[in-house]
Amino acid sequence: MKYRIEKDLIGSKEIDDSKYYGINTVRALENFNLCNKTINIDFVREIALVKKAAAITNMKLGNLEEKKAEAIIKASEEVIEGNFDDQFKISAFQGGAGTSTNMNVNEVIANRAIELMGGNKGDYSIIHPLNDVNMSQSTNDVCPTALRIATIKKVKTVIKELQKLKEAFNEKEDQFSEIYRLGRTQLMDAVPMTVGQGFGAYSKVLERDLYRIRKTEENLKDINLGGTAIGTGLNATDRYIFIVADTLRHLTKLDINRANSLVDGTQNTDSFVEVSSALKTCAANLIKISNDLRILNSGPRGGFGEIALPARQAGSSIMPGKVNPVIPEMIGQISMRIIANDTAITLASSSGQLELNAFIPLIAESLLESLDLLEKASVLFREKCVDGILVNEARCLENLEKSTALVTALVPHIGYDRACELAKKALKEDKSMREILYAEGLYSKEQVDFMLDPSQLIKPASFEGEVRVVS
Amino acid sequence: MKYRIEKDLIGSKEIDDSKYYGINTVRALENFNLCNKTINIDFVREIALVKKAAAITNMKLGNLEEKKAEAIIKASEEVIEGNFDDQFKISAFQGGAGTSTNMNVNEVIANRAIELMGGNKGDYSIIHPLNDVNMSQSTNDVCPTALRIATIKKVKTVIKELQKLKEAFNEKEDQFSEIYRLGRTQLMDAVPMTVGQGFGAYSKVLERDLYRIRKTEENLKDINLGGTAIGTGLNATDRYIFIVADTLRHLTKLDINRANSLVDGTQNTDSFVEVSSALKTCAANLIKISNDLRILNSGPRGGFGEIALPARQAGSSIMPGKVNPVIPEMIGQISMRIIANDTAITLASSSGQLELNAFIPLIAESLLESLDLLEKASVLFREKCVDGILVNEARCLENLEKSTALVTALVPHIGYDRACELAKKALKEDKSMREILYAEGLYSKEQVDFMLDPSQLIKPASFEGEVRVVS
Amino acid sequence: MKYRIEKDLIGSKEIDDSKYYGINTVRALENFNLCNKTINIDFVREIALVKKAAAITNMKLGNLEEKKAEAIIKASEEVIEGNFDDQFKISAFQGGAGTSTNMNVNEVIANRAIELMGGNKGDYSIIHPLNDVNMSQSTNDVCPTALRIATIKKVKTVIKELQKLKEAFNEKEDQFSEIYRLGRTQLMDAVPMTVGQGFGAYSKVLERDLYRIRKTEENLKDINLGGTAIGTGLNATDRYIFIVADTLRHLTKLDINRANSLVDGTQNTDSFVEVSSALKTCAANLIKISNDLRILNSGPRGGFGEIALPARQAGSSIMPGKVNPVIPEMIGQISMRIIANDTAITLASSSGQLELNAFIPLIAESLLESLDLLEKASVLFREKCVDGILVNEARCLENLEKSTALVTALVPHIGYDRACELAKKALKEDKSMREILYAEGLYSKEQVDFMLDPSQLIKPASFEGEVRVVS
Amino acid sequence: MKYRIEKDLIGSKEIDDSKYYGINTVRALENFNLCNKTINIDFVREIALVKKAAAITNMKLGNLEEKKAEAIIKASEEVIEGNFDDQFKISAFQGGAGTSTNMNVNEVIANRAIELMGGNKGDYSIIHPLNDVNMSQSTNDVCPTALRIATIKKVKTVIKELQKLKEAFNEKEDQFSEIYRLGRTQLMDAVPMTVGQGFGAYSKVLERDLYRIRKTEENLKDINLGGTAIGTGLNATDRYIFIVADTLRHLTKLDINRANSLVDGTQNTDSFVEVSSALKTCAANLIKISNDLRILNSGPRGGFGEIALPARQAGSSIMPGKVNPVIPEMIGQISMRIIANDTAITLASSSGQLELNAFIPLIAESLLESLDLLEKASVLFREKCVDGILVNEARCLENLEKSTALVTALVPHIGYDRACELAKKALKEDKSMREILYAEGLYSKEQVDFMLDPSQLIKPASFEGEVRVVS
Repeated sequence: MKYRIEKDLIGSKEIDDSKYYGINTVRALENFNLCNKTINIDFVREIALVKKAAAITNMKLGNLEEKKAEAIIKASEEVIEGNFDDQFKISAFQGGAGTSTNMNVNEVIANRAIELMGGNKGDYSIIHPLNDVNMSQSTNDVCPTALRIATIKKVKTVIKELQKLKEAFNEKEDQFSEIYRLGRTQLMDAVPMTVGQGFGAYSKVLERDLYRIRKTEENLKDINLGGTAIGTGLNATDRYIFIVADTLRHLTKLDINRANSLVDGTQNTDSFVEVSSALKTCAANLIKISNDLRILNSGPRGGFGEIALPARQAGSSIMPGKVNPVIPEMIGQISMRIIANDTAITLASSSGQLELNAFIPLIAESLLESLDLLEKASVLFREKCVDGILVNEARCLENLEKSTALVTALVPHIGYDRACELAKKALKEDKSMREILYAEGLYSKEQVDFMLDPSQLIKPASFEGEVRVVS
Repeated sequence: MKYRIEKDLIGSKEIDDSKYYGINTVRALENFNLCNKTINIDFVREIALVKKAAAITNMKLGNLEEKKAEAIIKASEEVIEGNFDDQFKISAFQGGAGTSTNMNVNEVIANRAIELMGGNKGDYSIIHPLNDVNMSQSTNDVCPTALRIATIKKVKTVIKELQKLKEAFNEKEDQFSEIYRLGRTQLMDAVPMTVGQGFGAYSKVLERDLYRIRKTEENLKDINLGGTAIGTGLNATDRYIFIVADTLRHLTKLDINRANSLVDGTQNTDSFVEVSSALKTCAANLIKISNDLRILNSGPRGGFGEIALPARQAGSSIMPGKVNPVIPEMIGQISMRIIANDTAITLASSSGQLELNAFIPLIAESLLESLDLLEKASVLFREKCVDGILVNEARCLENLEKSTALVTALVPHIGYDRACELAKKALKEDKSMREILYAEGLYSKEQVDFMLDPSQLIKPASFEGEVRVVS
Repeated sequence: MKYRIEKDLIGSKEIDDSKYYGINTVRALENFNLCNKTINIDFVREIALVKKAAAITNMKLGNLEEKKAEAIIKASEEVIEGNFDDQFKISAFQGGAGTSTNMNVNEVIANRAIELMGGNKGDYSIIHPLNDVNMSQSTNDVCPTALRIATIKKVKTVIKELQKLKEAFNEKEDQFSEIYRLGRTQLMDAVPMTVGQGFGAYSKVLERDLYRIRKTEENLKDINLGGTAIGTGLNATDRYIFIVADTLRHLTKLDINRANSLVDGTQNTDSFVEVSSALKTCAANLIKISNDLRILNSGPRGGFGEIALPARQAGSSIMPGKVNPVIPEMIGQISMRIIANDTAITLASSSGQLELNAFIPLIAESLLESLDLLEKASVLFREKCVDGILVNEARCLENLEKSTALVTALVPHIGYDRACELAKKALKEDKSMREILYAEGLYSKEQVDFMLDPSQLIKPASFEGEVRVVS
Repeated sequence: MKYRIEKDLIGSKEIDDSKYYGINTVRALENFNLCNKTINIDFVREIALVKKAAAITNMKLGNLEEKKAEAIIKASEEVIEGNFDDQFKISAFQGGAGTSTNMNVNEVIANRAIELMGGNKGDYSIIHPLNDVNMSQSTNDVCPTALRIATIKKVKTVIKELQKLKEAFNEKEDQFSEIYRLGRTQLMDAVPMTVGQGFGAYSKVLERDLYRIRKTEENLKDINLGGTAIGTGLNATDRYIFIVADTLRHLTKLDINRANSLVDGTQNTDSFVEVSSALKTCAANLIKISNDLRILNSGPRGGFGEIALPARQAGSSIMPGKVNPVIPEMIGQISMRIIANDTAITLASSSGQLELNAFIPLIAESLLESLDLLEKASVLFREKCVDGILVNEARCLENLEKSTALVTALVPHIGYDRACELAKKALKEDKSMREILYAEGLYSKEQVDFMLDPSQLIKPASFEGEVRVVS
């Protein structure tokens, strides 16, 4: 193997010359030699995008020679396209607030740019990773900016897929709008509703999730690029700061702006907590929805058995014919993971100190994972589960007819206490409410049938008289 | 003691006749006989407000006799005013999704209304807790509605006080806008800034917190009143649902609306998670800010010692003269509690099942506590701490001058590697950067002084030349 | 009102002379003027116990005059007995690592002791809160020691009640040891078991919880009393440290020891996290158990309906006759609160810095609440729910017979694939497994009945041949 | 590409014939097509180990032909050795309680065993994945058992490395046992101690962590193998259950036992929560320790600056010469991740239902990651940081001398109030305590020097007189 020697403030090291990264990356690989979870590659690519924007800006302003700038821009594009993904293997849990990965990107771009200019890797007199690639920048403005861009892009994808999931529930709402089932409160038999109304509620709650997730873009879009080390902009200029934000906006086609206060933007990570919180809220809803589907699908015979989730795979290695609700179970686990990631992000964000948060790498890893998972979960939930849900109408009707809570409809007429006695009687005599009411003779059979008609019970009455004939 | 006998579906019980509550409340007091944390009284009062609105509406619609309605309204007002606070002692962790407290309110209002009509407590033929006070209602629409109103009111108070805290930081930003101090990243000496810039960042992050907390009103304001048991509106009418929302809007002067889907509004508690998440995000920021103040205040001699928090009490029972940062420490603890409450709320919300969330009492307790705490914390943080913060200018200057990171200003001129050598030299020889640069002779003393002048280092350069004279 | 003047390092204040507390308490009441959650009174009483032990020890060693010591001891005992509970109203979230409450106890004991000696409150020349009551102590050894004692005592109570809950499940295990029901995995119909086996599993998991909670005493019992401010023991003597631990052991009858390292014992709060973690693990189990009961109890007609929890109160203000599983719902909420408290305790404990953890008050509040809740929950769960659980045998049998997973018993004989076909056939033709097998004619009716006999299916076979007749 | 056709209960599929896995695996790969986090490979290998043990046992008992058994055993060994790692790519967040991965292992072992017997992949008449490889087993006993074994093994490694970390702190305790520094409580100057005492406290707390982690083996070792689907042991025999546990004990050389109740062992995952809780407690301690090191190392000039962590890499891309505490920062992040994993594990464990916990895959992923991280963290923390820590003695002494809390030593002699006045005087006049005391003339210069001698102040007095000369 061919080696080159590189130096840093600690000393010098032999670097495998086939690598595009340099001594700072090697140090980091040794220092953070954890398990196999490496930094999120989408984050890395956005760092490269920031490098490109900085190079364009510095070229325009005359700070960087055109030839150098062009090589850096070209090299950055190659990183963005994923050609150098294997050069970014530093742990996601690296110390140093992202410095190691920023150094890693600087080194890979520098060495690739040197190659493009005909030089040899490691000859930093041609292109210097810090003086040139990192010109006017610091890890502390580059990494938060790149993370904001990566987050916005993923937020947009999540919204797209979550919207489709919401619509899948709407379709079920329509499809099942005339099938009645028993409502349950606290898992106990309650009053009637349509199967569609249940799916409508899932659609509604996801609509608010979409609103919440969408709203997070508002704070995400303010980038601190140009703030350099602590947000004061040391070693940058007003014009650079202005133009580089413009350039990034142009390159990303995202509505990003220079933050109003770069000092604030450098030290505070609350906008990421905000995104994670919205994802967490959605995750809590997905747990609820996926559990509902599992309850309604339970059985198929010895449980609720009112809906049938599509069979996706054999459910048991020992019980033949068993089919499990594997997709909702996956959704549940992903949701718990997103909630756990929110714990990590909240903890990390609260641990910032003075002018910087040292724990940005953990925030990045956790947040980008949550976004990736929610996107995938939305797709799989819809395609592999929701779209294929069927209803067992006979079972729905059977369960519905059994509920003694149907007596509720009579409360305005006969009062709570009398109704309570009838319900107790039905339970005690193991009869349906209808049977009891027929027998009781308070109302004619027709009146009873009218009063217990599900189509009447699933909505408010249209006028007072309907509810309170007898008082 | 005088007793009256009351009955329910389980049997009958002797009730202390001095009590306004009845058998359902007594059962609940026995069943949930936990420690001394009783249900949040503000929540109870909003339930009474809902009762008032329902009585007004039912009176208007002719469902409830005027005389009865007026007694119920009067009794509700007395509960709202707090005259019956001692009648609401059921545990905050009650099972039953709030039914016990709804029953409690129904009973107290009924018995008080009976009294107002000249009857004896317990004579429910005059006013019935369920048929009359609870008319057209269910726990499942009353409790979420009342909780939304209680939450909105507290959110408004929190915003008012948090806004003042934010402004207190702004005042410090102005006050200290010309005192320089050393910036730190990862707690290590970095480049200069003003003390004011630090406080400005605290103000900025709270501004976003205010935005986030304010935004939660959007989803909070949609109430499910009229949905009754499961949101289908059984036993209510379209007109009731329409008018009762109107009445509540009028009574509260809050911009509340009937939810688009009452089934959704009855089963989903995501809007409370949303509020809690915003509070949690704010709490994470307050931890960071309070820790920053404690670090900068540390010492006063053997630590950073750059600011002095106002002394509020003797800090030690053994070390005379010691003063501790007790207010930021309180803020930290309140913030951790708010984060913990968010865990409870998220868990509870994700545990909803089908048409209802049985864990609303835990959500109510945790959320209202968080709001109360954040309000109080904002006041105390401002009055007892932030307003009185002073700066130790001499110490700031001393620390600033020591930092070898001042060499950063030279990077554009001499490059990172050369600058690094100078910094190492300064550290090794235990000299200041200024001394090293004077000795080095790269620049004249005047040039060095200009380059290290903090007033130049705390902001971006106004034109490129300033940063990159020498390349 | 009569006032006295007291002084501290900040200045002087008028103190309502009816109060036993002094200026430090008044400052704290003002500084931490939060909502109504005051410091846990059991914690306060244990602080008074520590004061008593210190006074006894200092008297023995000749550091404290006998007359003074006796007055302090007597006053401490009165605080321990609860006579002065109303004098301890500082917030549970106080800053200052407990200094305020330690000061509060010092002041109340001093003033009461002064009274006992015939003096006037505030005349600290008779007994001084710090020089005398706090002699040889610091908040930083007193508070952790008192919290350890309070925790051990509550742990013992929790164990006692949790043990009884465990036994209640054992009784149900026995009671239902011959009633068969369908087992479910992932909520889907699986193979048979007895109802008793299910309850046996709840008993088993609580047995491990008991083991885990019991084990925490091991680390709790090492107290840091005598370590004073930072664990170095400044202003204490070797003999004092030795004797005071002995005295406390004698007074509490608990097996407590002087910690091996007092510096460690002063700064680390991991033993409290350990207790909380054990409680949290138990809480997670209680959530699972309470949910299981709610699922099996669901219906009663339109759900699983296999067990019937005792009715404890009317379940609905609108649906007459509805009974809800309010006790398991309370258990669920308490458990979530305990999990949330663990979040607070973990956060607080991880936030210790150098020689002290400033967040001990939050740890105390959260931990003692969790212990109180778990104790009460154990009692109520047992008395109000578990003891009264009944089984609906008919429903159990009906559900059992329906499960196609019964075909599992044939896998060793006919193989998984063939068995799978039969199960699918049963589902498709809406028949029971028994019907299918009768029709199929693979085995005689008697063989089929033997193979599907629940009493055979709920345990391993006694010899190989039983399982694998046909291969 | 060559394909083979495989069938399952849903239908048939073309399988790439180069793959050892079959149709169930392919279904799972499609159903859980998430991001790149695949199931922990160590978990997979332990499943293969269970397969081996089952095959050995069934061979002994005559249930499985010797030739088949030998092929299965050989194939299992190849999986255990890692030869087939690339065949196990199902997502870590798979639904189905591990069925997919159990199926995956069954299929890979079956196909490899078929190959070993000279057959073609997919010819399950030779060896059947379920009838043969999965004989007497279910996912529900195999996966928990394998996870217990994987966990025990990793717990042992963690203990080994954490023990070394603890010892590294002990070495620092010894090394710095005679260097004095200022103690701080609540970050404020307090009384003296040795630098070694601080490191001793870190060692002590890790000793308790070791105890806690070690104790978890007690509950981990009870395996539910033989319980099959729901713990009742259907399709297994008493002898199989007895022998297979023996075989596993023999193969693993671990002290594992058949669980007392297999029903309990199948549905409850509390033992994993127990391990995670112990790791979480350790993580909270590591956050505290790593933060302490960062505080003491802060500066190096404008902070505490009392210790110097070894430089591991350049700390900044913009500030030359800056060195950051990257290892403690990594430790902090890993610890936060472990705390977040505990959230996931607690949530997942509490979500078990009836006879099974469907969320075991999330528990496995989170727990094994935490163990891997803690092991690596222990190594890196020790090697890259703790071992190389140096003390800045001059700075320690300078800070020490400045503290006005030194006056504490005089409290027993002159009382708290008088001492307080002296401390205030020192602060006001910007003098050291020593200077004030010299000037004050209460004691001779020699007496003052004796009283302020750090060697006297870092431990309890040896006799009463030393503390209380003057009263």
